[in-house]
Amino acid sequence: MTDRPSTPLLDRVTSPADLKRFSDHELRRLADELRQETIWSVSRTGGHFGAGLGVVELTVAIHAVFDTPRDKLIWDVSHQCYPHKILTGRRTRMGTIRQKDGLSGFTKRSESPYDPFGAAHSSTSISAALGFAVARDLGGDCDTGHGDAIAVIGDGALSGGMAYEAMNNAGHLKKRLIVILNDNEMSIAPPTGAMSSYLSRLYAGAPFQELKAAAKSAVSLLPEPFQEGARRAKELLKAATVGGTLFEELGFSYVGPIDGHDMEQLLAVLRTVKARADGPMLIHAITKKGKGYIHAEGKRDGGHATAKFDIRTGEQKKAPSNAPSYTKVFAQSLIREAEEDPKITAVTAAMPDGTGLDLFAERFPNRCFDVGIAEQHAVTFCAGMAAGGLKPVCALYSTFLQRGYDQVVHDVAIQRLPVRFAIDRAGLVGADGATHAGSFDIAFLANLPGFVVMAAADEAELKHMVRTAIAYDEGPSAFRFPRGEGVGVELPERGQVLEIGRGRVIAEGNRVAILNFGTRLKEVREAAEALAQRGLAPTVADARFAKPLDRDLVLQLARHHEALITVEEGAVGGFGSHVAQLLAEEGVFDTGLKYRSMVLPDIFIDQASPEDMYAVARMNASDIEARVLDVLGVARMERRA
Amino acid sequence: MTDRPSTPLLDRVTSPADLKRFSDHELRRLADELRQETIWSVSRTGGHFGAGLGVVELTVAIHAVFDTPRDKLIWDVSHQCYPHKILTGRRTRMGTIRQKDGLSGFTKRSESPYDPFGAAHSSTSISAALGFAVARDLGGDCDTGHGDAIAVIGDGALSGGMAYEAMNNAGHLKKRLIVILNDNEMSIAPPTGAMSSYLSRLYAGAPFQELKAAAKSAVSLLPEPFQEGARRAKELLKAATVGGTLFEELGFSYVGPIDGHDMEQLLAVLRTVKARADGPMLIHAITKKGKGYIHAEGKRDGGHATAKFDIRTGEQKKAPSNAPSYTKVFAQSLIREAEEDPKITAVTAAMPDGTGLDLFAERFPNRCFDVGIAEQHAVTFCAGMAAGGLKPVCALYSTFLQRGYDQVVHDVAIQRLPVRFAIDRAGLVGADGATHAGSFDIAFLANLPGFVVMAAADEAELKHMVRTAIAYDEGPSAFRFPRGEGVGVELPERGQVLEIGRGRVIAEGNRVAILNFGTRLKEVREAAEALAQRGLAPTVADARFAKPLDRDLVLQLARHHEALITVEEGAVGGFGSHVAQLLAEEGVFDTGLKYRSMVLPDIFIDQASPEDMYAVARMNASDIEARVLDVLGVARMERRA
Repeated sequence: MTDRPSTPLLDRVTSPADLKRFSDHELRRLADELRQETIWSVSRTGGHFGAGLGVVELTVAIHAVFDTPRDKLIWDVSHQCYPHKILTGRRTRMGTIRQKDGLSGFTKRSESPYDPFGAAHSSTSISAALGFAVARDLGGDCDTGHGDAIAVIGDGALSGGMAYEAMNNAGHLKKRLIVILNDNEMSIAPPTGAMSSYLSRLYAGAPFQELKAAAKSAVSLLPEPFQEGARRAKELLKAATVGGTLFEELGFSYVGPIDGHDMEQLLAVLRTVKARADGPMLIHAITKKGKGYIHAEGKRDGGHATAKFDIRTGEQKKAPSNAPSYTKVFAQSLIREAEEDPKITAVTAAMPDGTGLDLFAERFPNRCFDVGIAEQHAVTFCAGMAAGGLKPVCALYSTFLQRGYDQVVHDVAIQRLPVRFAIDRAGLVGADGATHAGSFDIAFLANLPGFVVMAAADEAELKHMVRTAIAYDEGPSAFRFPRGEGVGVELPERGQVLEIGRGRVIAEGNRVAILNFGTRLKEVREAAEALAQRGLAPTVADARFAKPLDRDLVLQLARHHEALITVEEGAVGGFGSHVAQLLAEEGVFDTGLKYRSMVLPDIFIDQASPEDMYAVARMNASDIEARVLDVLGVARMERRA
Repeated sequence: MTDRPSTPLLDRVTSPADLKRFSDHELRRLADELRQETIWSVSRTGGHFGAGLGVVELTVAIHAVFDTPRDKLIWDVSHQCYPHKILTGRRTRMGTIRQKDGLSGFTKRSESPYDPFGAAHSSTSISAALGFAVARDLGGDCDTGHGDAIAVIGDGALSGGMAYEAMNNAGHLKKRLIVILNDNEMSIAPPTGAMSSYLSRLYAGAPFQELKAAAKSAVSLLPEPFQEGARRAKELLKAATVGGTLFEELGFSYVGPIDGHDMEQLLAVLRTVKARADGPMLIHAITKKGKGYIHAEGKRDGGHATAKFDIRTGEQKKAPSNAPSYTKVFAQSLIREAEEDPKITAVTAAMPDGTGLDLFAERFPNRCFDVGIAEQHAVTFCAGMAAGGLKPVCALYSTFLQRGYDQVVHDVAIQRLPVRFAIDRAGLVGADGATHAGSFDIAFLANLPGFVVMAAADEAELKHMVRTAIAYDEGPSAFRFPRGEGVGVELPERGQVLEIGRGRVIAEGNRVAILNFGTRLKEVREAAEALAQRGLAPTVADARFAKPLDRDLVLQLARHHEALITVEEGAVGGFGSHVAQLLAEEGVFDTGLKYRSMVLPDIFIDQASPEDMYAVARMNASDIEARVLDVLGVARMERRA
């Protein structure tokens, strides 16, 4: 373990207001210290890393020039917020980041007034900043007062349509608004899309040096207090502009590109903008993801995220895994199927590594599409491919599929097009917390007419479901699977085609039937074993399908047991609700069936270890066991016996 | 009634292949006939009108130059598809448009091979076309074969972020793809947003005449068969280009602007593009919504949609209304509240008339924001305003709220920001059919922690709910209301603030309790009256809130009745599912409660009159009555007695 770095200037900072007392030279040194502190801090906790290192100078410069929290600073996605947290009173708590009861890995309103708008999903910052700008101008109530609205957005996030929607609206409203484009040629993965090439051309055409000179002269021409009116400042901003950028077409004034690691230039430009901006303003800063830490800079993803690591070697300290990750099993299964069927294609929205499609792309480069952070397009693009006779697989995290929901309904479901949705990170996700939980997909997919909705109970089931989805060409299908490692079951070389809408009975028991859907099967089995030891062995079944529901299985379980308990890792409205609807329609409730539905609780669960989250959600084996005992009316004393 | 126009050329067209035999001069006359036929047809049926008249020449030219259905022609939104339907074998069925068992008012895959991809929501066409282009290049199976992929998209639809996402991806993939920008300075409402100003500047700078010349020379230089290679064609396309457009920045070749009503120019440009395009291509055509019909051209919305009308006078034949529309009651109620509270703002996504916010904008121009067809931005923009201390009301149709679902979850619900969602067109919508049905909002909102979800049972309830939502500042809220007229109840001058999570008992009865949520209350009351005449008067209650649920009311109804039936105009997973979850948790099912949940059926219901749709959905008073009889085991014979 490396010693904590010496940070004499940083030690004098308890809030951003302290930065006002530093000279520009000191601010530059402060940035160096902040970078070392960030490296040290993340080496001890793990977390998002490369993005933060890329904005160290930007973070210092913004807080030095603007008056946060009165000025609203909004970090898009906010993977890059660690240096910001260190400067805004959260330094001592950095060791708790992404842990239960600790700091969030993202900005969060409830955590600090310096986080006026939380983020975790991409491309929201300009919309939010425009909201603050309007609230300022219309006299909204705000505890911290209303100043400037500043969005910092990466070039990756700019591929999301809503960023464009927001710019289109901001350019129209003409309100003072500051957008800083943090251009590191990187989202999480290397960049894709025409916008990315465009940005490269923008700064290829304008070397930093000239702009640096322009920015310097801008400042030298603006003595404190500014003696001239807005006219000259406007001319200056114009002068610093590469003519006719796309941003200007959308009504923004454009300054840049500037060197996002050059403190002098950053301060000069931000001061000028602060003094004189009178409408929407885009500052284009070029940065390097992972800047200043050699083991991050060298990586293809700029050291996006990391486990704890050794600062000297960059070596990560990961626990050895016992089983392959679900993500990897998905990717390998899909590759296996794609070897058989040339019509299979795969789409990711800027997450080739996270979804495992990097492996697919290696094997089938022409059949894999990274569309950028653009879930809406991803879904309808798949619908188009399906209408054209291909077999597209749209691989998204559950939480990001929410971005393409209307397209799922309108373009896929209503047209009954055979798009296959591979839904990763379904259920609780651990350290990324509430914003990344995949809680709602069962509910929002299973009520769409004609959709096939599956959930994998283990990694072998996932293999079967990949093959089943590929084989099923009559309409849309989805299979969900959780984050993390499989449970360690033996894997077949290739999956089997499952019968659509048919579940399986895993163990026959008495009195109580537990009908599982997806990821909690292991815990259900454990609960069943514990119950068996009391002589209360329940029947255990795995539904596999939330839609079409295995009506025969549900009714049979309901009619031959005193109680039926459904278990799913999703919010109310999903699998259990469909079971209840069937039981109601069939009049099974009339007979006094003891029915219970274990779903995720009606709260957003903050970051924690998966185990802790499942404890909060009451979804562990002991919770399932307790539920069975409760429904059977087995008293507490008896339970302890 | 005006006589059917004389259409000698059109009468010779049974499919687009027939257009190949027409001279250019005849094609121009054919367009004139097609326009008259469209006017005549819509005058008899009502429907979307102005958009179709604006693309008559474009429709003829595309079908004359390209080989549909082998070439895939995709109309964005497809309000403009009436002339296309007339040309593609559906002329004789135009009298059935938007009616039960008739033609859809939109393009629809199941209706015709000439509709390769249906639409109704905006901004999907480029994504779909790109999917077809990829399918073509990768050898997808397609009954009609694979040729060009052509998207026709309006300037309004271009404000939707997914169109930008698609262009960003298409510019990157560089596949041959044809996008025709149908620029009529109009979405449904007059245009908004920076892109709209940009497009105006684009063609302000390039008069048609020069381009016309350019296009002509393009053709004269390309004899049939084309003797020269791609080089010269490329130069030509470049020559026809206004330098450095935003579209070119995104990797498209740009041709335009051209006069979208000049058949000669259209044919020349399309032939050149067809012959020589070797990547993504954008043709910018200027058209006029409502072109050629004076009573449409003169309207602010270009005669967007119409009832049946008299061709000579343009006068519409609407049935007199008995009650104000829900939309109008919403708008007036919001204005009433906004007079009291200067912090109220309102946001529409390009639907000021449809949502009633045109009235709000007249009264409070600075507090009303039309953000364009940009629901994602609309939601997060509201979240920003709420974080800034305003009281934003986001007024969207239920079906379009699907576009902003992730933003509802991530930016509003997780941050517990008090954004108010006014959800219009909730439930079945009649002539617009399945794509516009608001079936899923209860389910996808009511499972979000901390959300208040209301549904108005009549127009007075709506007034109360508007005021309640404004008064509730603790977190997000939504109130849903249906399309069409209210039921005719007396309206208070101002709504009351309802107690959050508290329903109301409307009539006390025996044996059966009907717990209604929202719009079907009138039918529930009618059913109750019919039942009362048999001596089976049920208890009737209106829940008002799906969330928080009125637990006391639900449990009391359940415990004091033999049967409980919930009624809602939404899909499974919503109100009834939350009631069932509560009943399960509380062990009420254990007692043998006869529980039923009346929800929308698990099918997409095609266009029809609202009455017919409710009949399909089994949601009319007689269906509710039958359900009660059924649950009580009253035999069929007895029912008829």
